[in-house]
This record gives sequence, structure tokens and C-alpha cells, in this order.
Amino acid sequence: MTELISSIETHDIRFPTSRERDGSDAMNPFPDYSAAYIVLRTSDGAEGYGLVFTVGRGTEVQVAAVEALSDLVVGHAVADVLADPGAVARRLTGDSQIRWLGPYKGVVHMAAGGIVNAIWDLAARRAGKPLWKLLADLSPRQLVAQVDFRYLRDALTEDQALDILEAAEAGRADRERSLLEDGYPAYTTTPGWLGYDEDKLVRLCRQAVADGFSLIKLKVGADLAEDQRRLRLAREAVGPDIRIAVDANQIWGVDEAVRWMEQLRQFDPYWIEEPTSPDDVLGHAAVRRALAPIRVATGEHVQNAVVFKQLLMAEAVDVVQIDACRVGGVNENLAILLLAARFGVPVCPHAGGVGLCELVQHLAMFDYVGVSATVRDRSIEYVDHLHEHFVDPVRIRDGRYVTPTAPGMSAQMHAGSLDAFRFPDGPQWTSTSPFVPAA
Amino acid sequence: MTELISSIETHDIRFPTSRERDGSDAMNPFPDYSAAYIVLRTSDGAEGYGLVFTVGRGTEVQVAAVEALSDLVVGHAVADVLADPGAVARRLTGDSQIRWLGPYKGVVHMAAGGIVNAIWDLAARRAGKPLWKLLADLSPRQLVAQVDFRYLRDALTEDQALDILEAAEAGRADRERSLLEDGYPAYTTTPGWLGYDEDKLVRLCRQAVADGFSLIKLKVGADLAEDQRRLRLAREAVGPDIRIAVDANQIWGVDEAVRWMEQLRQFDPYWIEEPTSPDDVLGHAAVRRALAPIRVATGEHVQNAVVFKQLLMAEAVDVVQIDACRVGGVNENLAILLLAARFGVPVCPHAGGVGLCELVQHLAMFDYVGVSATVRDRSIEYVDHLHEHFVDPVRIRDGRYVTPTAPGMSAQMHAGSLDAFRFPDGPQWTSTSPFVPAA
Repeated sequence: MTELISSIETHDIRFPTSRERDGSDAMNPFPDYSAAYIVLRTSDGAEGYGLVFTVGRGTEVQVAAVEALSDLVVGHAVADVLADPGAVARRLTGDSQIRWLGPYKGVVHMAAGGIVNAIWDLAARRAGKPLWKLLADLSPRQLVAQVDFRYLRDALTEDQALDILEAAEAGRADRERSLLEDGYPAYTTTPGWLGYDEDKLVRLCRQAVADGFSLIKLKVGADLAEDQRRLRLAREAVGPDIRIAVDANQIWGVDEAVRWMEQLRQFDPYWIEEPTSPDDVLGHAAVRRALAPIRVATGEHVQNAVVFKQLLMAEAVDVVQIDACRVGGVNENLAILLLAARFGVPVCPHAGGVGLCELVQHLAMFDYVGVSATVRDRSIEYVDHLHEHFVDPVRIRDGRYVTPTAPGMSAQMHAGSLDAFRFPDGPQWTSTSPFVPAA
Repeated sequence: MTELISSIETHDIRFPTSRERDGSDAMNPFPDYSAAYIVLRTSDGAEGYGLVFTVGRGTEVQVAAVEALSDLVVGHAVADVLADPGAVARRLTGDSQIRWLGPYKGVVHMAAGGIVNAIWDLAARRAGKPLWKLLADLSPRQLVAQVDFRYLRDALTEDQALDILEAAEAGRADRERSLLEDGYPAYTTTPGWLGYDEDKLVRLCRQAVADGFSLIKLKVGADLAEDQRRLRLAREAVGPDIRIAVDANQIWGVDEAVRWMEQLRQFDPYWIEEPTSPDDVLGHAAVRRALAPIRVATGEHVQNAVVFKQLLMAEAVDVVQIDACRVGGVNENLAILLLAARFGVPVCPHAGGVGLCELVQHLAMFDYVGVSATVRDRSIEYVDHLHEHFVDPVRIRDGRYVTPTAPGMSAQMHAGSLDAFRFPDGPQWTSTSPFVPAA
């Protein structure tokens, strides 16, 4: 019998992180890190896992969107789906009725991305490889065939993408070996949440340096005097040689971003992240021109490759922050990696939340092996939250991600975590007893 | 007792328009025009109506999003809500958890817009005025206070907005009188759907001219030879003096849009609408530079005022096509009208679908009375579909919208239509008998 995609099951999983103000920033004072968690099953009993990261209320809308798209995949032959995930991605993002609700943005686009990632997870499990390795083993032509170039050709054609991928073939084996031996650089946001007091800030800054990180990130934007005090404390704690990035989480208008950052320049910020609306390409370009040499970074809320294309064409960013769950999955992130390589801009993925570190490490590591061929000025965000809920959690050693070797995209969560944090009826939401991971 | 917002009820209403291919275009071959229809009730039994237009599958996701936001309004005092809809709009679009799913875009943003519009509908009913008149009677300062300028000030400050509105005070009474006497210019898309055969196309083109329209619109982009044949037939049918706009519904990349339109230039197209991704500000600018004097129009899928701001700053559009249901409701459309006025670009609203004509006419008419103070090169799209389901349907006379005088935003649908087209269990979806409007 032909093996079919038999079901897509979606779970509303929420962690009450707002109780400790983990993850608090200028625009997200009380997030409850959450996920629309996706289990894609085949008629032979195989499974692929994906998720869409959310921050609490509205996760049920994200779940509804995944369910609305499921019909476009369920019932299809697994062999067809795995032979060309790009075709499935185009079907999911291009459905002529559902696309009205985006197109290529927001809830329906993230839902498509979650399903596409679950398909790649299944493909990698079946191949017995971690996703980064599965991608690295595809030929340049196979990779180019996985990208939707419809709206990208004015910046990146199929031939240009092929050139980038072919150029990266030299030295591939060496990079793969170094990746497996030394891992991939990480930076940490753990010290920098707005809701933490000054003692905790200083302690976590010192700890970050002791743990081997060379870049830390602090949230800013709620109060200027407070930002100056926190940045001074952080700079004193880490010394002049550690890079300190700051992140405003979209709180400013364009001119306000420039004025505020001029008041923080004395603390030598390495980049300013999300200075204004993630939709404002021209605004980011204006901020970058005004603030250089402070770098401008954005991406966790950049809705799709068309906006990344413009950020690069307009010379609006110094750092491209891909996110595993914001865009249309592995395929669109492949497009974004290729665009960044074409413009010579480093990719430093957004992570944290629930499972973002687990998923996005595969994309950054593939970028190193198969696309940009360098880790220079590149690192993956690391936040030490909620990894205990994953079957194959990220590991950090000496300020670097340890390269995963288990098959898949590392998205699978423990069954016990799904049970405990199911919203609204899991015991973590109906009682106040502390959670002990099931693993 | 204080009157409260007591409930928000949301209906999944779908019309099986794909059976006749009404509304068919290059990206939407088989739309079922639909709506997440919103009834906002007060504890005194008053009602306000709103809707989010959709095209079939996924409407249940839109309904879920409206429900997710309802808690932010239900239980609030009606007097507070009506005194400052802008504050409610900011609460709905800025909720610190739900905004992660946008922000300011897609399903959650349209849900906020639907609720905001229902609030304005209630406000206008209570004032005994059509919405356009309610807005026209607000002072410049009151109007400016309804706009969220956070991401707009690099293009439009509060003071500049005030200047625009104060300049429009001269002649206001005359314009209001002419509006009530002569209505507002319309253009028609009725002849131009891709799924219609050539006889129907020619017949509807001639009918449009006979009905007094001076601008018609044809869908293009599926097949070049076919587009040339249809445009030739249309141009012959209407003569040289009628403007023919064409609409590609986002099917092209940037360079492709230019190449294709060069092959249609001989038929003197007035504007090319949605030549590429609605997210591609720089792409629209490039298309506009290459194709002038053919105008570039977009907006029905432009997600928010930040993208409109950039389209105007980059000189990427000649025609701003606001949509009543895409952005965050009346308040954000007020921002967009002010931006368009600041840059001197005409607004020609997108309409059609379900209820879009009914709602958006109020915004265009207010623009004439209180913002741009002109109808030069401006007209509202008109499509003669599905108006029979509305209690206060639009009326067209001599190619112009007849100005509505009934209180509200004209969004209320007949109870019989809600019953008949309820998805999935209304009789129009469970049987094949023809529908007769209940009114």
C-alpha cells in the first residue's frame, strides 16, 4: 500500500513564563512562551514534528490556521511530499482562497511554515540525518529547485543562486568536520530581559563571559535613563572586549530610534535590533545611515523573503536575523540565506522562545557548510529557557552550539510536556504545582 | 446602569460565487466570496456591525481571530469605547501577546479592523448619521487624535496632519452638498473577470459605458495573447475616451511585470494594479519608473499604514487603493488618507467582494469632504455582486455612488442572508436550491 500523510495533529501548548518575566521586553512585558505544536503522521506510523512559536493569547488562532491548511497535505503520498517539499510549500502558501488572509504573512504564513518544517523533519528522520546535514548533502541544483523565485529575481536569479551554492562546494568537507568538532558560535540574551533587576543583570552578564560568550544582548527602549544605567552596568561587568547588542523590539519611530540610540552610543553597542516597525524597509535604511558604525539588525518579525530582499537591496541592515517559525519554513529560509549571501550580509538567527534554538541551529549550520561558507560575524542567539521540554535539546559548550547529530530538525517535544502544558486544560494551567520534566 | 459592550458575535458567511466564476482573476481562479461577519452588542440592546472580507477556505481562522480579540472590548463601557475608538484600536492591534501573530498584518490585524469598524458603525448609528458624515463633523484635532502616529512621523507628523485637515475646512459645506446631490464617481470591474468569455466581456464593456462609467477594469496576467485579445476587444467596445485599467493581482515578478505590460501598452492602459507582491515597495517603484506614463496602483493587500507610507515616500504608486477590511479599521484608513493627501496621490478605493463597496464608500466620501477636498482622478471601484444581502446596499446612478444617508457604516446584512449562507450548515451549502434574498 502507498504510504500516505494520514493526519496532522496540532496542540496548543503554553508555558506560564510571564510569572517570572522571562522574555520581557519593551513591547512584550508579560509573554507566555507558547507554541502551536504540529505532529504530522503517516499511514505507516512515521512522524514529523514542527511548531509555530507564539507568546500566549491567540495561540488557538494559530492552531486553527494549521488545521485549515492540513487538507492540502493530508491524503498525499509521502514519497511525493518528501521528493519535493518545495512544491508542497508553494501549495500551502499559494492556496487561492487561504492566501487572501496573508498573503505570505502572519498567521496563515506561519502555519504553512510549521507544516513545511514538519515535512523536512520527517524527511531528515527518514534519511537518518540531522536536517543541516540533509540540506548540505543536496546538490546545488536540488537546493535551487526548492526555492520560490517568483518575487525575488530582481535581486537573485536561479543562476545566481546556483553560483553561490557551487562556490560553496570547495572546502565543504572541512567545514563539516570543524562544525562537528567545534560547533557553531552562540550569543546570549539571558542577561538582558527588561524585567530583571540590576543584581540579576550584573550576575548574568559576568556568568555569560565566564561561560565563553563574546556577544550578549540587552533589551532597551522602555526608559532612557534606565537603559543608560543598565548598559553602564553591563559594560562594566563584561569589559570593553565583549560585544553588547541592544534590542528595542520595534518600540520606536524612525527619528526617535536615532535620537534614543545617540544617547546609548557611549556604551559602544554592537547592533541595534528592531529599532522600528519590521515592515519599514526605508525606515531601517534611514536609521542605519544615521547610526553607523552601530549596526542595524532585524528579522524575527520580517514576514517573508520579499521584505528581506528589500532590506538587503536598500542597504537597510547589517545583520539578517532569520527565524525558523516566522516565514514559510525551511524553503523560504533557504531563499533568505541565499539573498543574504548574495549581498554579503551575515545571518545571525533569532532564537529563544520555545524551540527556536532547536530548529534554527540547523539552518545556520547549513548556511556555514553549504551557502556562506563562513562563521565570521555570525552567531545564533541563545536563551536558556524551556529546552528541557525537547527530546533533542540544544547543548551549549564554551559559548557555542554543539552540532546536533540526531536525525530530524530537533523539533520533537516530550509527551509529558505536551500533557502538562496543554492549554487551557493541562495541569500547569489548572493547578499551581511546579512542573518536573517527564524525561 | 452603565451600558457595556455585552458581546461580540461572529458569523462564518460564505457565498458560492466560484460556481459562476464571478471574481475570477490570475491568482484567484475560484473564489467563494465570504465574510467573518461581526455583530457587536451592548447591554442596552444596541448593535454595531462589521465584517472581514475573505474568499472562502480559512474564514473560520478569521472568525477565531475576531473571537480571540473580543475579550479586549467586551465588558468595557460603551461611553468610553465610543468616546475614543482610537484607544480601542491601539488596544486591539497592540495587545502584547496577540501582536506576535502579526504585528499589524494578516488575520489578527484584519480582525482588529473588523471590530474597530463595528465600533464606528455603532457610533454613527447612535449619532444618527452615516459614517462619512460623522467623520466629517469631527474637528481636525479630534481626527488627529484618532490616528496612531508611532511609525508614521518620518512622513507625517501630527502637526502636518492638522494642517491638511484645517486646509480642508474651506468649502466643506459646498462639497457636502454636491456629494448629497451628485454622489461620488465610480468605476466598474464587472466586465473584466478572467473567467468570462469574450461575448460576455464585450457585452459588459458596452453596458458599462451605457451605464455612465468612464473607467473600467480588466483582469490580466494569466496569458499574454489572451490579454491582448481581450484588451483589443474591450478597447474597441468602449472607444478611446474611456479609461481601461488592468489588474494583475500580484502574479508577476518585477522584471516580468515590466516586460508583460510593454506588450499591453498599445491599448493605452490607465493603470496597472498589483503588478507584483503587495509587500514589494521597491519593486513597485521600479515598475513605475519603467512603465510611466502608465500609472501604478496598489492597496487591497497592503497590510498597514507603514507600507503605504513607504509606497508614497518611494514614489512607487500613482493610485492608493484603500480597503475597508484589510487594515486596522477606520482609524488606520484615516492615517492612510492623510498620508495620501500629504503626498498628493489620489485614493481610489478597492471594493467588490462582500460588503466592501458598502463600507469603503464612507471613507472615500469623507476624504472628499474633509481631507483631500477633491474628486479629481478619484473613483471607487464598483462590482455588482452580493449587494442584495445588505440592509443599506450601495446604489449606483450614472456611473456614480449615490451618497448614503442612513445612520452607520452600511455593514449590516439581512438576517435571512446570514441564515442561508452560514458555513458549513446553512441551506445554501447543504442544498442546491437557488437563494431568494429575504428582504
